[in-house]
Amino acid sequence: MEAHRGLPAYVPGEHAEDGRLIRLNTNESPYPPPPAVQQAIAREAANLGYYNDPDCAALRRALAGLYGVAPENVICGNGSDELLYLAFMAFADACHPIVMPDITYAYYDLFAAALGIPIERIPLEADFSVDPGRYVGLGKMIVLANPNAPTGLALSPGDIAPICAGNPDSVVLIDEAYVDFGAESCLPLIAQHDNLLIVRTFSKSRSMAGARLGYAFAQAKLIEELDTVRNAVNLYSVNRMTQAAGVAACAENGYFMDNCARIMASRRFATDGLRALGFEVIESLGNFVFARCPQMPGAHLAAALRERGILVRRWDAPRIEEYLRITIGSLEEMEALLRAVREILG
Amino acid sequence: MEAHRGLPAYVPGEHAEDGRLIRLNTNESPYPPPPAVQQAIAREAANLGYYNDPDCAALRRALAGLYGVAPENVICGNGSDELLYLAFMAFADACHPIVMPDITYAYYDLFAAALGIPIERIPLEADFSVDPGRYVGLGKMIVLANPNAPTGLALSPGDIAPICAGNPDSVVLIDEAYVDFGAESCLPLIAQHDNLLIVRTFSKSRSMAGARLGYAFAQAKLIEELDTVRNAVNLYSVNRMTQAAGVAACAENGYFMDNCARIMASRRFATDGLRALGFEVIESLGNFVFARCPQMPGAHLAAALRERGILVRRWDAPRIEEYLRITIGSLEEMEALLRAVREILG
Repeated sequence: MEAHRGLPAYVPGEHAEDGRLIRLNTNESPYPPPPAVQQAIAREAANLGYYNDPDCAALRRALAGLYGVAPENVICGNGSDELLYLAFMAFADACHPIVMPDITYAYYDLFAAALGIPIERIPLEADFSVDPGRYVGLGKMIVLANPNAPTGLALSPGDIAPICAGNPDSVVLIDEAYVDFGAESCLPLIAQHDNLLIVRTFSKSRSMAGARLGYAFAQAKLIEELDTVRNAVNLYSVNRMTQAAGVAACAENGYFMDNCARIMASRRFATDGLRALGFEVIESLGNFVFARCPQMPGAHLAAALRERGILVRRWDAPRIEEYLRITIGSLEEMEALLRAVREILG
Repeated sequence: MEAHRGLPAYVPGEHAEDGRLIRLNTNESPYPPPPAVQQAIAREAANLGYYNDPDCAALRRALAGLYGVAPENVICGNGSDELLYLAFMAFADACHPIVMPDITYAYYDLFAAALGIPIERIPLEADFSVDPGRYVGLGKMIVLANPNAPTGLALSPGDIAPICAGNPDSVVLIDEAYVDFGAESCLPLIAQHDNLLIVRTFSKSRSMAGARLGYAFAQAKLIEELDTVRNAVNLYSVNRMTQAAGVAACAENGYFMDNCARIMASRRFATDGLRALGFEVIESLGNFVFARCPQMPGAHLAAALRERGILVRRWDAPRIEEYLRITIGSLEEMEALLRAVREILG
């Protein structure tokens, strides 16, 4: 009756429903979903008694239209987390390891542990960048968050194309959760590279973290392989409200991209403000910054911000224990952050 | 780049959005969710930008209150399908097979295939019943849908207690997806049996198939083990709207139980009506009947009903290929079914 797998626990960012807190710890959007998305959800609630479409056909059509691909190039999942898990399950196993940077999205470790997949880690460079040359010719599944989390640094499609070409028999998974905040997408590469899988989410740039909606792009054959695994795990995982919300969100893309521009402006403001206070701040292309305060240990600073009602993210992990990952909220929230830091540093 | 697992495809009941069809093929409820559930969803849509509670704390409290257990005895998932998958992952593996009847919920096969778990099948008796004595002393994980699908036959808690006691070191999973339509729940047994896991769903008796919400009961230690696996697979899988809908549904339990009574009355009507037309109908405790028409092959009858806009479920599988599984809809839908059958049989 014991569980046969000894799994570590994922420690997510503190889940706080207290509206007085400033939540800069889980990379949520400070902007609500637009009224059309909320209305689509309310409308769809009337149909709740009936199963959702397991193929997410309308949603895949909407995404295909928005991004200029065919519906056969799109798959949807219960958050990008589900698609990442399914991709690990489809394209790696105990005898086929995954290669990834030593510092990246922590959930990859959990998926691999759950599935018994070994991980080979390539250290980030001293400046936390990924050297793309180290990922060519490995002949193994490669997973790169681009921009990377928690650093915010990104490779260009020109850097990633040789990784795809240089591992022709292995899947190259590019996790573009944060791509809408200034990085360049690898989507144009899927036409040339049948081993490229691009995973995205509605949680960050589209203000829908609580809806659980992820999507992925690839050539039709790779999507089909992923779909076979999806069918065997949880065919109906994207519920009616989420599918309806996703379709409505595709029609409101301008609203979301305007918000991304606002967040990028707030990121500029926060980066410059923290640097003026003596922080080392990595120039980020995500909706967060990764920053270190030379005057104070990271753990102290995080605790002092928590006391002032501001949540940020920090890991007790080698190389990054002094850094904070700070979500870019609204401009007002960034001003509150800088005020609090000024107070703390005295 | 090929998928490393050769997985069969699950063929779900035809997904039809055409409102003119009578859908008696996926065991959905003919009654909509109550207004309070729809309102809870619409309200929660405003909070969509923020991650949902990964612990489903409010929903687990609501379920615990409704069923007289502690929140530590409850876990929630993205449909009962997710909880079944996670239980398979937690408590079985390539070296620890699962024992189940030869005829039962088809998705169990898929989960086991995806996870590389061997299945040992115990044939149902000639009358499609489960002989509980055959499940005692096996020392392996046991999975029983109770009532069973697609037969509708159920064991009593008195039948199941010796199975739990007789396999003390293995999990006994009782899938109570259909328990609210007249069968007796094994929930009272969890106090005595630390290896009993009871899985439930909001899809059938609670009119929420499109919301994807499952829950399970067990002693706290077993729930914790399941939760560790859940954390490694998809921590946030029950989204905000679904959690809110579930909490609201718990407060409206009377509405749902009244609907169950209506469905049981329609089941009586349909069973008697089909028998009067010459059908063999198993006396079902689910929201469906499993029935055979001696005058016509099952495949012909299903096709003839489809032509008349009525969808039913049928499997090309040994022992049951002549049977139809017919969902119990509203009384009006059952009248339409009987009219169509009368027409078809001439």
